[in-house]
This record gives sequence, C-alpha cells and structure tokens, in this order.
Amino acid sequence: MSRKKPFTPSWSEKAPVPGTIRSVIKYGSPTAFKHPSPGWVRMMMDEFHMSEDDFSARREEGNAPVALDRPVAMEERHIERFKAISGAANVVTDAYSRVRYACGKTTEELMELRKGIIREVADVVIHPRSKEEVKDLVAYCNEHGIPLYVFAAGSSVNFGVRPARGGVSLVISTHMNRLLEVSEKNQTARVQAGMFGPAYEEALNRAPELFGTKGRYTCGHFPQSFEYSTVGGWVVTLGSGQASTYYGDAYHLVISQEYVTPAGTFRTREFPAAATGPKVNDIMKGSEGTYGILVEVTMKIFRYMPENRKHFSFMFPSWDEAVEASREIMQGEFGLPAVYRISDPEETDRGLKLYGMPPFVDAFLARRGYRPGSRCLCLGTVEGDRDFTKLVKKKIMKVCRAHGALSLTGFASKKWEKTRFTEPYMREDLQDFGIQIDTLETSVTWDSLHRVHEGVRACIKARPQTMCMTHASHFYPQGTNLYFIFLMRTSETEEFRSFQRGVIRSIMENGGSLSHHHGVGRMMGPCLEEYLGEEQMGVLRALKKHFDPQGIMNPGGQLGLDLP
Amino acid sequence: MSRKKPFTPSWSEKAPVPGTIRSVIKYGSPTAFKHPSPGWVRMMMDEFHMSEDDFSARREEGNAPVALDRPVAMEERHIERFKAISGAANVVTDAYSRVRYACGKTTEELMELRKGIIREVADVVIHPRSKEEVKDLVAYCNEHGIPLYVFAAGSSVNFGVRPARGGVSLVISTHMNRLLEVSEKNQTARVQAGMFGPAYEEALNRAPELFGTKGRYTCGHFPQSFEYSTVGGWVVTLGSGQASTYYGDAYHLVISQEYVTPAGTFRTREFPAAATGPKVNDIMKGSEGTYGILVEVTMKIFRYMPENRKHFSFMFPSWDEAVEASREIMQGEFGLPAVYRISDPEETDRGLKLYGMPPFVDAFLARRGYRPGSRCLCLGTVEGDRDFTKLVKKKIMKVCRAHGALSLTGFASKKWEKTRFTEPYMREDLQDFGIQIDTLETSVTWDSLHRVHEGVRACIKARPQTMCMTHASHFYPQGTNLYFIFLMRTSETEEFRSFQRGVIRSIMENGGSLSHHHGVGRMMGPCLEEYLGEEQMGVLRALKKHFDPQGIMNPGGQLGLDLP
Repeated sequence: MSRKKPFTPSWSEKAPVPGTIRSVIKYGSPTAFKHPSPGWVRMMMDEFHMSEDDFSARREEGNAPVALDRPVAMEERHIERFKAISGAANVVTDAYSRVRYACGKTTEELMELRKGIIREVADVVIHPRSKEEVKDLVAYCNEHGIPLYVFAAGSSVNFGVRPARGGVSLVISTHMNRLLEVSEKNQTARVQAGMFGPAYEEALNRAPELFGTKGRYTCGHFPQSFEYSTVGGWVVTLGSGQASTYYGDAYHLVISQEYVTPAGTFRTREFPAAATGPKVNDIMKGSEGTYGILVEVTMKIFRYMPENRKHFSFMFPSWDEAVEASREIMQGEFGLPAVYRISDPEETDRGLKLYGMPPFVDAFLARRGYRPGSRCLCLGTVEGDRDFTKLVKKKIMKVCRAHGALSLTGFASKKWEKTRFTEPYMREDLQDFGIQIDTLETSVTWDSLHRVHEGVRACIKARPQTMCMTHASHFYPQGTNLYFIFLMRTSETEEFRSFQRGVIRSIMENGGSLSHHHGVGRMMGPCLEEYLGEEQMGVLRALKKHFDPQGIMNPGGQLGLDLP
Repeated sequence: MSRKKPFTPSWSEKAPVPGTIRSVIKYGSPTAFKHPSPGWVRMMMDEFHMSEDDFSARREEGNAPVALDRPVAMEERHIERFKAISGAANVVTDAYSRVRYACGKTTEELMELRKGIIREVADVVIHPRSKEEVKDLVAYCNEHGIPLYVFAAGSSVNFGVRPARGGVSLVISTHMNRLLEVSEKNQTARVQAGMFGPAYEEALNRAPELFGTKGRYTCGHFPQSFEYSTVGGWVVTLGSGQASTYYGDAYHLVISQEYVTPAGTFRTREFPAAATGPKVNDIMKGSEGTYGILVEVTMKIFRYMPENRKHFSFMFPSWDEAVEASREIMQGEFGLPAVYRISDPEETDRGLKLYGMPPFVDAFLARRGYRPGSRCLCLGTVEGDRDFTKLVKKKIMKVCRAHGALSLTGFASKKWEKTRFTEPYMREDLQDFGIQIDTLETSVTWDSLHRVHEGVRACIKARPQTMCMTHASHFYPQGTNLYFIFLMRTSETEEFRSFQRGVIRSIMENGGSLSHHHGVGRMMGPCLEEYLGEEQMGVLRALKKHFDPQGIMNPGGQLGLDLP
C-alpha cells in the first residue's frame, strides 16, 4: 500500500502587512505560525464533512488596511494635556492604534474583525511611561469624566479591553514593563504591571547577572497565553498558570500591589500575612480595571530548579478512575504536582489520533482494557526540591496504578510541554477556513464535577457536527477546573455568539463557576449578578462607587458593574 | 547538700464562685488550673526582687459578686420583640450576663475587673438559636438603631467583644455550635460559627461514626486559645493555628461563608477557586463583626493521620543561625513542617531553666558551643502522608545541622505539645500576686525580622525588671511571625496600658505589622489608619457604609472604623 502525501491546506505563512486588520487579529508574534497537523485536517474534514476544496481558499483574512470612519471625539485641549503628561509621541489617535488597542482575542471579535466590523474604540491611545504619569492621567480623566481603559497584552477572551465608552486607552505594557527589584531574602520580585511573561521569567532566571543574587528564580506562573500576557494582567483578571496546582493561582502569588484609582493611590504592605482587618490587597485582585490601575506588584518567586522536574503520563481505563485517582492525589498530603491534567475520552481519543499513535499501540492499549471512547490520558510534572519531586512522582505512580492506570512514561508530558504556548496560533489557520475553536472553563467541586462535565458536554454536542474535548487542569484538594474546547464550522457571528452564550448558561445551570481563570470581562458581565447574587454584587458595586464615583474606570459592562 | 523543698506560693485551687468577678476573669474551665512551676516562681522572685512574703497573700482576686449599678437602657418593647424572636429564656438582662458577655481576656480588662472596674456592657444579652433568628435580630436592630455585638468564646485580647455603645450582645456559641455537614469528597465541613474548637475537632475525628464517612478528619487549626475559641472567631479575626505553617492560617482554610448583615444575608459559593471578580468570601474575613455576623462557614478539612506525625527539636548556636536555617527550610520547596518555632536566646535560656535542665546538660551544651545568652531552641512537628513526613523531617535535620544545630530528638517538641493549650491558665496565678504576663505578635518579612526583634526587645527591656521572651512561629516562604512575651510586676493599670501601647508603637515603627493573628479589635483600632494609610482605611470604611449604613454592627472603635 503506497502512502499518499497528506493533504495540506493553503495555510497562511506570511506575516500580516502592518496596518491591516490581519495584523490586529493575529495571535502572538507576526512571524510565528503553528499550523494544524495533517491529523487535525483529516479530523476536521471528517467531522465537518469538508472537502479539499473547502480548504483551498482562505476567506475573510482581514488583509485590508484598518479603516475607521469615526473621528476622534475628544476635545483638543484634553489631548494637549495628555501630551503634556506623557509626551507627544506617546499620545496617538491614528485609526490603527485606536483599533488595535481596542481588541482582545475573543472568537467573536476575531470573526467580526475579519468581516470588517469594528466595535467601540478609544479616541486616544496613550502609552504612559511611569506610575506618576498614570496618576496624573487618572486624576485628569476623573476631573473631566473621560472614560479610561487599560490594555496590556491584549489576549483577553471576554472583551476585557474593549473601550465601550470611547475615551482613553492606556497601553501599560509599552514602557511600564520592567522588573524593578528582586529580594532574594524574602523571595519576592517587584515588577511593573506591564511586564510580559517571558521577559519577567527570563529576568528572574538571570537574577544573578541582573540583580546580583546567588540563586536563579522562576515566577511559577505559565498560562497558555504566557507569551502574550503581563504580570499585571495575571493579577487583575485572576489568571492561573499551567503549573498552578503546585505554585498557586495568580491570586496566591501576589504579596502586595500599588494601585492608582480616582479615590487615590496606594500600595499595600508587604507582609506574608497579617490580622489587620479585611485585606485590601485581596480586594483589588480580579477588579479587571474597574476600580483602578495596577501599576506595580510584588510577587512571590521560587527557586529555579528545572533539573529536578519530573514528568509523568498515564492512561486510565475510564474518566471515573482518572477523576478518583486525581482526587486521591490532591487530597493525599504527600505534596502536589505542578502541571497535572486529565483528558476526557473525547479529548484523549482525538489527541491520540492527532499526535499520530501507531495502530499497534492502539491495539495494545485496547487489549489491555484501555478502549477508545472510555480511556483517559493523564499528564503532568512535579517541581521543587529533588527529593520532593522524586517522592511526589513515586506517590502519583502508586495512586494511578491503584486506579488501573498504565504508565506511559514522561513522553506525552514532555511532548505537551514543547507546544504548551503555541496552541493559540492555530486559530488563525482554522478561521481562514471558517472553523471556530474556542474554550470555556469553570471551577467545580469534586462532587459537582461529573454533573458539570456531562451537562455542558451535552449542551455542546446538541449542536450537530460540533467537537467537544474536555480536560481537568488546575487542581485543588477541594476540586478542579474543567476546560471545554469546542470546534465548529461556522462563519456566522450571531450563530456562534448565541451558541457560546448557551454554553455559558449551561455551565451555570449545571453548577460550575462562571469562570475559573479567564475572568469576567464584558462577555460574562451580564451573568455576574445572577451568579453572585444581588447582595454580593452589591458589595462589588459599593467598592466601585468608592474607588470610582464618576464611573470612568473601564465603564460599559466590565464585570457587569454598570449594567442595570 | 540537702535539697530544700521548693517554695510554693499559695496558688488558688478553687473553682470561682458562680456570679463573682473571678468567674468572669478566669480563663477556660472553672475547675482547671495550671500553676507556674517552682522554676517560674524562682525566676520571678529573682527578676522582680520578690520575697516569699510577696507570694503569700493573693490580691484583687475578684471574689466579690458582680455588681452593676447601670440599669438596662433599652425600651421594654424591644426586649419583648427579642423574646418573641429568640424565646424568653434566651434573652437576659441580669448583671452577671451583661458583664460576662462584655469581657474578653485583655490583660488590661482583667486588671480592671479585679479592681471592680467594669467598662461598657450590653443592655441585653441574647442567645440566638438559629441563623434565621440572627437575621430577624439584625433586621430589627437595624430598623431601630440598636447596637449589636457578638460574643463567641470570649478569648479576645483586644477588647473585640466590648459593647462600647451598649445595646445587644449576641452570644453565638450557646446554641449555634454544631457541625452540620462533612463532605468527604470535597474534604470540607460546614459548621455553625459558634462551634468551639475541641468540639469541632472531635466531631471531625469521629466523622465515620457521626457522618458515615470512610476516613477521619482534622481541622488543622490549633491556636493556643483552641479550647476557648470558635470556628467563626478564627475566621472573623484572622487567627493562626500552631500548625499553620503546614495547614495555613484561618484565612486559607475558609471555602465559603454565610453572613447576616444589615444590607442582606448571603452565602458565598463553594468553589475551590474562580476568576469572577473580587472575592466577597475574602472581603468578609477579618471584618471582626463590623460588617455583619458570620453564621455558617465551610472549611477545608484534612485527613486525620496522627500516626504519621514526626517531632523534632534542635539547639542552634545563635539566633542568626536559627533564623537562616528556618528561612532555608521555608524556601527549600521540599514540603513544610506543621508546627515550627524558634526561641530567641532569652526565651531559650529561661525555658531551659523553667523546665529544669540538669546542670551537666547545660555544661555539655556550653562546651559544644551552645552558650547561654546566644543559643536558641527550635522545635516542631511534621504532618501529612507517612513518606512525606519522613522526607520533610530528614530535610529539616539536614538544614539545621548545616547551620550548626544539635538535634535534641523529639523530646522538647513532645513536651511542648502536651502543654500547648494550658499556658493561658497561668495568668490568674500571676495576677493574684501582681504580676502581668502578656504577649504581642507581629508579621515580619525575612529582611525586617532582626530590626523588629531588636527594636521591640529594646523597647520592652527599657522598662526595668521586665522580662521579654521572643519566638518566631507561623512561617511562610516570605517571612514569619514574631511573638513577644513580656512579664512585669505592676498592679497599676495605667502604667501597664501605656507600656503596652508603647510596645505596639515600637512594633509599627520598627516595620512589623500591627498584628499577625490576634486581630485589631478596639486596642489596635486607633492605629489602623496610620498603619494602612488613609486610602486603604477608606476602602474598609466604604465597605462598612455599604453593609451597615446605620452603624449598628460592633460600633465604638472596632477596627477603628468609626473613630474620627
């Protein structure tokens, strides 16, 4: 049997032309690409009944230059004042900047942009150079009732950076992106909010050269959006890194913060703990730009010991066994793994196909009782001290085996690690051929996990020709995060929007949290009051009124605070 | 040389007569006593130049019946309404109840009570039977502007339960003290706020019998006041248990809470984590009764595995070495011990004397370089899985030895464990002879530890004939808690008060936190604004205004919220 060369769609391989819509929608580096594998293409052709023809011509690529027919609706005297504060070069009103710094990476906005639909933009884009400038800008905007938005890395998936009421967008990452101080004694780092993940991690790794420390450090926070996210963004949207099971969520990594708000500027104190009333340091986390602007943050850091990292992967005979083994690991009190994830049967089977498992391996697994449609992949890493990682891995092996799992060595885990940050690059390719891939995540307790998993899957699968792959990641002794990935062929924004809103509703109705680590933004904003209840929403609104009585901070639906 | 029988002061051995001041001031069980050892007595006689005569007659014992010359300043119609809500038997106005439920265990209030000085009391004491009753009571008091206080176990050391504006004191621990639910799957327990520590722990230990679980559980939270503290008290005052280095502070143990506030009743959701805006669940912690009343709380629980507990103790040659070893342990990423404490030289030397170290041991230690005035005792435990505790203990041994420490086996640690909850019983004995023992604690970062330790010690020692013993306990990778114990001979309340306020000021000026785990109450309240800064204090006040616009919840200085 001769092997046909696999069919390859005409993926785009060109860096977007500067100034085009394409350059706004492209994820990450303009010159970096990650195309779906041949396995992926075959799977989509099968699932969506697509022919090679359907993959021959890219559509709605957004190659036209950004065009904006909305004049700057801001008095010239304000703009002059902004220039006096931040320098003329850092205050811009060109169409491209106004559009680029108004957009995140929500599937819906990408679909719309491709069709040339541009939603709300700011009138003026400012790149402040210091926290003192931010203070002056906030004070001025507050005085004149000018809406103020913050843009950092722009990977928001919930319209979190959309300037819904025009005004000013502050791009905090252009200049305010440095690591200011490393305290080796306290194991903390003081960093400007606009610093990107890789620059932050690299500076910590190189702390001996840059800060004269004895040891090297790591930030411990690696979300999938790592390359296009900032330290400040992690904190104000309550992100979780892939190794959060060990290092903690962004929430847990913050020691102190400095905020500029219309009600004043303050820095919380740097104690590891204190019994001095409700913690303002925690109150600010997750405020998503609605209370004030995070300008500096002191984070916990950790010793950088990659040489101790252990990898593991397992195949479980069923989702139930995978879940029970995971619960035992998280509650076993022998130390927690760093990365840890279990894939449900659909994700497992598709993953095995995509990564090209040889047929004999499949047959071997099936013979051993690890059958398609039931078997579940588990992978992860352990980090920390050498003896600790050895112990934790040994314990995990023992628990997994007791639950019928087969060890697959560290291979799958290492393979996953290599591409952990590049998955989002595939979205452009898929969208070029009218396929949408999106994700929703939710926090679950162990006793609600199965209900949420089954209920939300049923909701997604109720749409014909829709794939749904689910994994659990980010574990706690009390529960985990369910991460739903869904793929569908559609170019109809309205259809996609109503489908996605239906999935969000299904998550809520089945007892999951509205979000685990993607935040609320404007997409979940309308649901927040129903989710939290009137009384708790009232608390968030009281804080809003305190910090921002004029309603200038990220107005227009963010966190649902100013919705009726 | 004949050995003289050690002198024993005439300690009180009688349970206080019911209805007396003595019965209000006595710590813990009326029939339990723990007298200072002969070593203690000798030390006090030496330090305070006291003779056996000075220890012959107890003074200001408070044996008189409670007398209160203040009529109930509450309209009868309100009292009738309270009786309609909570039952006539649970609404009392007798002098004894009004005094008893107005007092905590601050040294200053005990000194005053012994002199017959009674500060503010509530007009009515109510023992609510359910959260529904609490809701009705809060609504009624809010409608009529009646101040509302909460009393649970009464071990507050900062006037936290003092009804500064009269009104009503709710005793939450009389009826609302049950464990409602144990979720073995989620490893959580839902408990009424007024449940005492020992009852809670016992019910968790006996979960198989009481709730049909497979395993036994522990709460992981054991403050020194364990026997006379409640779960709700731990949460609203931000307590720390002695094993907090492993289990976390009360703050970290809370999964969700139900509050009754003038602005409404709500229960936060039970997710292990969520990115849904600022966390109301965390905003409420530490509110010390000023925002609302905590009625139920869902706490993390842990597997009960006492058989795995490992003990260790060491002698370090110096405080510097003890601190550096501790930092290495907390930052070493091999797992954390449960109990962990290091005593400074004064505490170490006094401790060795008090617990009667034979002279040849002393000589041996000194010969080995562990000299009085320099050497420091370290003790602790490791908890968790068996292999985990084995590893962590081994690692701790290694680090300590590398810092010049001598292992003393687990003996000292086991000895400490036996008396860990009974130390507070000694206070009555000491006060009977005009000696005050009190403590202040503060959170420090590693790089501020020595400055705070030296500065605060200098402040305390500036008073002649004043002992100061310090240990660090409750450790974090970023720092620890310094716990100052001071002893002095005085019966002058004003002198004691101004001395103590001076120590608090010294803590602040040297860079420590205002409190690590004793809370704020009315004692630290006047300092809170200076400590947090105007902007952060403004946040706490904005929340206060939202929850309690009439200012009925614990008014009169608590957290400094209603101070000018």
